[in-house]
Amino acid sequence: MKTKVGFIGLGNLGTPIAQNLIEAGYLLQVYNRTASKLDQLDQDAITRCASPAESAEGAAFIVTVLSDDNAVREIATKDDGILKTLPEGAIHISLSTILPETAKELDALHRDAGSYYLTSPVFGRPEAAAAKKLWVCVSGSEDIKAAAKSLLESTSQGIIDFGEEAGAANVVKLAGNFMIQASMEMMAEAYTLAEKYKVDRTKVADFFGSTLFNSPIFKNYGKMIAEKDYSQVGFTTQLGYKDARLIFNMSQQSHTPMPFITVVHNRLLSALAKGWNERDWSEAISRGVTDDAGLG
Amino acid sequence: MKTKVGFIGLGNLGTPIAQNLIEAGYLLQVYNRTASKLDQLDQDAITRCASPAESAEGAAFIVTVLSDDNAVREIATKDDGILKTLPEGAIHISLSTILPETAKELDALHRDAGSYYLTSPVFGRPEAAAAKKLWVCVSGSEDIKAAAKSLLESTSQGIIDFGEEAGAANVVKLAGNFMIQASMEMMAEAYTLAEKYKVDRTKVADFFGSTLFNSPIFKNYGKMIAEKDYSQVGFTTQLGYKDARLIFNMSQQSHTPMPFITVVHNRLLSALAKGWNERDWSEAISRGVTDDAGLG
Amino acid sequence: MKTKVGFIGLGNLGTPIAQNLIEAGYLLQVYNRTASKLDQLDQDAITRCASPAESAEGAAFIVTVLSDDNAVREIATKDDGILKTLPEGAIHISLSTILPETAKELDALHRDAGSYYLTSPVFGRPEAAAAKKLWVCVSGSEDIKAAAKSLLESTSQGIIDFGEEAGAANVVKLAGNFMIQASMEMMAEAYTLAEKYKVDRTKVADFFGSTLFNSPIFKNYGKMIAEKDYSQVGFTTQLGYKDARLIFNMSQQSHTPMPFITVVHNRLLSALAKGWNERDWSEAISRGVTDDAGLG
Amino acid sequence: MKTKVGFIGLGNLGTPIAQNLIEAGYLLQVYNRTASKLDQLDQDAITRCASPAESAEGAAFIVTVLSDDNAVREIATKDDGILKTLPEGAIHISLSTILPETAKELDALHRDAGSYYLTSPVFGRPEAAAAKKLWVCVSGSEDIKAAAKSLLESTSQGIIDFGEEAGAANVVKLAGNFMIQASMEMMAEAYTLAEKYKVDRTKVADFFGSTLFNSPIFKNYGKMIAEKDYSQVGFTTQLGYKDARLIFNMSQQSHTPMPFITVVHNRLLSALAKGWNERDWSEAISRGVTDDAGLG
Repeated sequence: MKTKVGFIGLGNLGTPIAQNLIEAGYLLQVYNRTASKLDQLDQDAITRCASPAESAEGAAFIVTVLSDDNAVREIATKDDGILKTLPEGAIHISLSTILPETAKELDALHRDAGSYYLTSPVFGRPEAAAAKKLWVCVSGSEDIKAAAKSLLESTSQGIIDFGEEAGAANVVKLAGNFMIQASMEMMAEAYTLAEKYKVDRTKVADFFGSTLFNSPIFKNYGKMIAEKDYSQVGFTTQLGYKDARLIFNMSQQSHTPMPFITVVHNRLLSALAKGWNERDWSEAISRGVTDDAGLG
Repeated sequence: MKTKVGFIGLGNLGTPIAQNLIEAGYLLQVYNRTASKLDQLDQDAITRCASPAESAEGAAFIVTVLSDDNAVREIATKDDGILKTLPEGAIHISLSTILPETAKELDALHRDAGSYYLTSPVFGRPEAAAAKKLWVCVSGSEDIKAAAKSLLESTSQGIIDFGEEAGAANVVKLAGNFMIQASMEMMAEAYTLAEKYKVDRTKVADFFGSTLFNSPIFKNYGKMIAEKDYSQVGFTTQLGYKDARLIFNMSQQSHTPMPFITVVHNRLLSALAKGWNERDWSEAISRGVTDDAGLG
Repeated sequence: MKTKVGFIGLGNLGTPIAQNLIEAGYLLQVYNRTASKLDQLDQDAITRCASPAESAEGAAFIVTVLSDDNAVREIATKDDGILKTLPEGAIHISLSTILPETAKELDALHRDAGSYYLTSPVFGRPEAAAAKKLWVCVSGSEDIKAAAKSLLESTSQGIIDFGEEAGAANVVKLAGNFMIQASMEMMAEAYTLAEKYKVDRTKVADFFGSTLFNSPIFKNYGKMIAEKDYSQVGFTTQLGYKDARLIFNMSQQSHTPMPFITVVHNRLLSALAKGWNERDWSEAISRGVTDDAGLG
Repeated sequence: MKTKVGFIGLGNLGTPIAQNLIEAGYLLQVYNRTASKLDQLDQDAITRCASPAESAEGAAFIVTVLSDDNAVREIATKDDGILKTLPEGAIHISLSTILPETAKELDALHRDAGSYYLTSPVFGRPEAAAAKKLWVCVSGSEDIKAAAKSLLESTSQGIIDFGEEAGAANVVKLAGNFMIQASMEMMAEAYTLAEKYKVDRTKVADFFGSTLFNSPIFKNYGKMIAEKDYSQVGFTTQLGYKDARLIFNMSQQSHTPMPFITVVHNRLLSALAKGWNERDWSEAISRGVTDDAGLG
């Protein structure tokens, strides 16, 4: 018999993840604020739900892929939230990028309600999710991680364990998003410098992306930034800014001055001021650099 | 019969390169300001020279690995400089990290003197040089690049061609050193943030270095920075600062505002102010971050 | 007959203000978390209160001088808060530095309760308060400003009116604190540069403070920073950081990238990381600059 | 009989200074690269010269008001430069903003030639020069300063003495220009923040300019920046950038990290990249801030 899994959040990233879970044989009970998004999924493999609570009913797991701290908090705690119905011992696998403090708070709320919260943020753009190539960072109790392993493997290329602290995997996820943002700024500066000296941006990006910096971030974003082609919107400026804000918040809470995050934070903030909310975050950063340099 | 190659500059990087050339069968005519450094080389395979000019006499190539623009300019043009003796048609293979403007100037001087200048800066720390794993960026005339290919291959894992402009490969080299410096700052900030949240720095560095950022720069410097182990001095703060200064100079000349270079420039400048000139540049950057965060 | 005035907050700034009000003939009903601070005041001129609510009872005005948004919000709304007892038509004169959003929220809460909230943040260190030389920025309804005028004049050298919006005067106050912080950083950088060139810091500060920059901020803080004498703690690093944080928050809310606030924010954050919470904010900024420059 | 004074440099600032000297009764021997600029001066009071050397002939003083280090160096040392003809014991009063190192170099060259060099940079925009309201910073030998005093007083409201070191007054001048640039950035950020919160920029500028920051810099530039009226070009972006570059150079030479100068340096650099070379420097900085904030 199929395992029932609640699923909430059919955004750019959530949708391919839901599809992976369906392919892996889970029976999904799906809720999404905009219900029409459910039409994209195989209707035989899902149950359409009218509320988060309904989605959690009788489920062994509930997977949430939401945009920010408040969204996760609300989905859990509001009147028709999942904590109202989540069965005793069920596990909330939370894939969203949120603050470690929020994860701790949610972890406690779930324990109080007799269920479990598993911090499991993921790295990867929508294409990576579709290809089951996400990286999942987890932290939480050993047995809960063990119980969720198989489900997470069905959508990822690897699960990395950061111990038992509820917030730890969120720290890693936000540190990583910071590193991605900073990498984009760095490439934008370097490739724009090259362009000004009449050296081919794409050639420089190819070189670095295949030698010293031959890693996915530098290859993929490097190509977009070198070619100034931001047409594939995988992660919006608005969401990118939200993460910069969370990282800056962590910098403040932990008394860790981070000059690089202030630079990228302000790039993304300026992009919001210009109304670029829905463009890819790579455009917000890269065009900030080229505009400052007087280039088109 | 062995090809005669002039060789000047037995620093951390120059020494293993000279050894590679010897192994490859070249007869080296070596000059170094501090003559005692020549003792490290196989004395049967080298001719000890008392001046740059002597080192260039009768050579098909002369290889220089020097610390800055002035050093290269001087070695070429002073009274006992290489341009005094370099045979017609011989090629000066210049591996130093210098400004593109200086490369153009030297290129013209060599042409006037009937010889050739080949811009060939290299990426890699001393260990990489010893393992013949350098990356060489070249730019210059096609036939000169062809003529130097075999020699350069004997010390590198790849030669990347950036066209015919004398300065182009220097632009790439300095853009790359900027990216390395910025990567170190980025890692130092991210891993220090993790530490403040009680997440193991080395575990975070391992994760990123084997997934999203699985490239040499993030693996190697990532380990040093995560472990706060700066005992291997491969590239000094003084030389790192010199490069930051050259990159900033290029930012100025080309009207390319680069906020990240100002951050790392000031980290290295502060390290000089504190007398850390001879420490590894990774320490200058990483300790700047941890000191600001009140950590040891 | 004397006007009854509630008074809450006997910190560095609140205490001299309370004394000014006593001198001006008001009958103060004083509450302070640490009750012993009330001993500094003329006991004949005050009524000692055990709660905020008691302090507001029967008062025409209540003056609060508190450290942050939460403190003001709590004093107003908690079970024994002032909104429980403040007479209909009475005016809460709020001198604290808080966010404009918080002022709007409090303004609405007071109106709902039949009383008034007057945004009235002040500029000046404790010495200025003692000398009745504060500057008061106000915003709110015309008649409320008129009613509070005489009381505010008894502790200030001028009242500047920023219109009817409850938050407006807070915007000006925080913009001003930003300008003060940035002025300190600017002076610290300039005078340290002079010192490095063996030009007398105090002479440079004297010159600027009496010519191009002959204003209180540059004179007073200029002297402290030039002489590196931070022994007079008028405003702590902790409070200064709180303001930097509020200003940064406003920068975020309003989509206004402000690179200078990120610099001073991180100076103050680093000072907190080093445990300098109770030192004067000028020391946090100025020693940040001299330490980075390798000076004592 | 009138004192003969050589005069070189009829730019925005030099012209009103020349007029002041004429009014004070000096006989000016004027040279300017663009000779037509001499037409603005009272032709009876001047001798038109065809070269710097001619301008220096038989003069007791020669006053130069030039745009940068190279211009001053050239005027002094080239074939028809002033050192060729300047009488023994004559004094070169150098009002230009240049590096302290250059001043030292020129000081030595003049002594070798039997004449004197007096470092005398000035503060003030063209209007201030016309009103004889400049501030002059001097450094050099006591007797030379005494000899030049009367001439300098004829165009200034005060002369401030920074000792005997040839470079000292240049350090103060560049530190001051840094403080002016940083003040403009600070005001632009603060007033733009106010605007975003719908608080009148000009009202905020008026308040600060008449209270905490009631000094010329904050009053004058404050008005321009608050009103976004940059039509009076008193000091071009190009010259402002040159100064930012010199200040940054001093920061490098002296190992003094100065984050604020990097911010304003990059603002001005971006303005050059956009072709704003001839606009007032206040526009370069202030529009940088408002553009980043998405405002017109």
